[in-house]
Amino acid sequence: MSTVKLLAYDEMSDEARSVIDDIRSTRNIDEVNNFWKALANDPATLRRIWESLKLVMGPGHLDPLAKEMIYVAVSAANGCDYCLHSHTAAARAKGMSTEQHSELLAVVAMAHQTNALATSMAVPVDTQLLVNRETSTSSPD
Amino acid sequence: MSTVKLLAYDEMSDEARSVIDDIRSTRNIDEVNNFWKALANDPATLRRIWESLKLVMGPGHLDPLAKEMIYVAVSAANGCDYCLHSHTAAARAKGMSTEQHSELLAVVAMAHQTNALATSMAVPVDTQLLVNRETSTSSPD
Amino acid sequence: MSTVKLLAYDEMSDEARSVIDDIRSTRNIDEVNNFWKALANDPATLRRIWESLKLVMGPGHLDPLAKEMIYVAVSAANGCDYCLHSHTAAARAKGMSTEQHSELLAVVAMAHQTNALATSMAVPVDTQLLVNRETSTSSPD
Amino acid sequence: MSTVKLLAYDEMSDEARSVIDDIRSTRNIDEVNNFWKALANDPATLRRIWESLKLVMGPGHLDPLAKEMIYVAVSAANGCDYCLHSHTAAARAKGMSTEQHSELLAVVAMAHQTNALATSMAVPVDTQLLVNRETSTSSPD
Amino acid sequence: MSTVKLLAYDEMSDEARSVIDDIRSTRNIDEVNNFWKALANDPATLRRIWESLKLVMGPGHLDPLAKEMIYVAVSAANGCDYCLHSHTAAARAKGMSTEQHSELLAVVAMAHQTNALATSMAVPVDTQLLVNRETSTSSPD
Amino acid sequence: MSTVKLLAYDEMSDEARSVIDDIRSTRNIDEVNNFWKALANDPATLRRIWESLKLVMGPGHLDPLAKEMIYVAVSAANGCDYCLHSHTAAARAKGMSTEQHSELLAVVAMAHQTNALATSMAVPVDTQLLVNRETSTSSPD
Repeated sequence: MSTVKLLAYDEMSDEARSVIDDIRSTRNIDEVNNFWKALANDPATLRRIWESLKLVMGPGHLDPLAKEMIYVAVSAANGCDYCLHSHTAAARAKGMSTEQHSELLAVVAMAHQTNALATSMAVPVDTQLLVNRETSTSSPD
Repeated sequence: MSTVKLLAYDEMSDEARSVIDDIRSTRNIDEVNNFWKALANDPATLRRIWESLKLVMGPGHLDPLAKEMIYVAVSAANGCDYCLHSHTAAARAKGMSTEQHSELLAVVAMAHQTNALATSMAVPVDTQLLVNRETSTSSPD
Repeated sequence: MSTVKLLAYDEMSDEARSVIDDIRSTRNIDEVNNFWKALANDPATLRRIWESLKLVMGPGHLDPLAKEMIYVAVSAANGCDYCLHSHTAAARAKGMSTEQHSELLAVVAMAHQTNALATSMAVPVDTQLLVNRETSTSSPD
Repeated sequence: MSTVKLLAYDEMSDEARSVIDDIRSTRNIDEVNNFWKALANDPATLRRIWESLKLVMGPGHLDPLAKEMIYVAVSAANGCDYCLHSHTAAARAKGMSTEQHSELLAVVAMAHQTNALATSMAVPVDTQLLVNRETSTSSPD
Repeated sequence: MSTVKLLAYDEMSDEARSVIDDIRSTRNIDEVNNFWKALANDPATLRRIWESLKLVMGPGHLDPLAKEMIYVAVSAANGCDYCLHSHTAAARAKGMSTEQHSELLAVVAMAHQTNALATSMAVPVDTQLLVNRETSTSSPD
Repeated sequence: MSTVKLLAYDEMSDEARSVIDDIRSTRNIDEVNNFWKALANDPATLRRIWESLKLVMGPGHLDPLAKEMIYVAVSAANGCDYCLHSHTAAARAKGMSTEQHSELLAVVAMAHQTNALATSMAVPVDTQLLVNRETSTSSPD
């Protein structure tokens, strides 16, 4: 069904295998998801995406569960069925309760509704929301 | 610029005004945003959207700031410029720091990147992610 | 396959069941669609969505069939496969002919084509289309 | 602001001018909208789009106003600000009342909300909605 | 699964068959893809789309493979699973290597990431990018 | 107008400045675009995005101009006005002719039209397009 071959571990290049090994040890799992087996066809992109993901989803200023729920929200907006399943599962693994999941979906759906209203009415941004009015104009030198 | 007229308070119907009054007292503000002045052309929808928003964004199982950030994430995915400005401002008002805003945008953008990869490779959902395999099949009676 | 459990009638809470009963009697059907069985996990959202839908899709100023076709148009734009199936079926139940369905899809597809052209050329809105130039500026008091 | 030059009539090629002339006489207007002045940079596409639009939006099995409202619905979903302005104006010119406009936007926004719910819950299509189960399988000869 | 019936050749109207025959001889294939069997329900749209596609994807100023890859990029952005499969296959038939496919997907995904950043930060377009500042304003006469 | 401050060079952190310096020397320009001045608020993301962009858009298996046009195609699909302007300008700087630009937009728009048709008809993917039927199932060990 995929447009690229899902590679088994022994079909991957050495470079791809080293990334897969890092995913497995970082996440303490035996087998990676299909996303990584598909991405393994392009070891350079596999490495870049994994390294980026570790940075972006790693420790920072937001709660790890909040970050997974934001990922679910974007995946819903993009209609990415694969991503919805994998990130909903990830959010559950990080402690998302059924009630929190329901509330997440309610917020996401409500946002789509008011987004559609604001867009179709072409509402101009309120002056008081334009906090960056005084954008910097000095030259870079 | 809008496709509907932005109504001033004294141009609104009594039904619209009563909703606007509730928004002003609930949010403790003098003047509502343009979104509501545009929606005031349709008092029934104005009331329905405001009542829904109070329920969805009110106290629940998720942190209020997390909910605003989810709203920003959806607004970015939908390219709703108005919504991005109003909900970024709302998130700041609820305590979002500059670092949290940066991290929110990094997560949103990363999600768009991996969504595009999963979609364009048409990756099949992993069997272990299909937690709902045993969906209920009994009749409703 | 769903990310939430589809609930059978006897698995639902009393609050959810009362909404499902209302859907069944309003629509004069024995069993509701999967959408409602999924939404039944969150009785408050189930009720809010059903009540909103009754208002929005109920008698008003537009023909009921036109409203279903607008729903199909939005569902196509969002790539919502479930919604396309359910609202295409609903439009047929409201009398949409094969020829009308074909014409609906032709309009939807044409709109996507010209939307893409206008967006990619970044065409500025014509002055004569800005009917709301004189937006109201008086204060709400 | 546009990514291509908006051409004045005397800057267009003869082929482009003949299409513009047909738009002006068909619509009984003196000056065409900016969309056509932008498209005039590519006379072949200008002709193809205009001829397609005449066919798709011309007399058929749907009410002309319903077709314009479907166009508005798609334009809102795509976030095409130009298209929203031009097709909202066109719908008004075809008789759309303020109440019908409000109802159109309410339907569009509601559809976005339930689309987001169905997508994020990954609801499987109901068996009874799959009317085309018996798709034809005979060879084309 | 489809919302319209996929027509076998002997179920099509004469007008639809003549278009299908042209597709088969132009592409030197025995059987057309499901897309055309679905579109055959509406012979006028079938003809219009096929004639447009021949013009747009035919010889011009861009490399045929580049055009197929652009089609894949749009299909990914729209989350059109059918289109992704058919145009990825078409690109391969026109010589796209595995390495080129990987690079295409990397560019597409990167574009989604930076699009999301630019949109969510609402970055104003740089003055030097507005090459069309002096848009033509003369009348069409 | 932006939701984050556009930073002038002397307002940036040392880490941000070193990335900006690399952009300026790599591209041989005096001043970077607003996108980078906005991203400079988050030096870690600024560095990650710039390093990724250099890899993805650098020498590879696709023509640099083709890659810029793919970027334009995605930006149009996402309705990212900023990205459309910056990548259309970048494509022109890499040699895109007016005729090539017109053809790019025609392909993009046509793809949106057929995407909408395939999606709204829910056309099942042809068996012969599922080239990856035999996806690997061996374990990663």
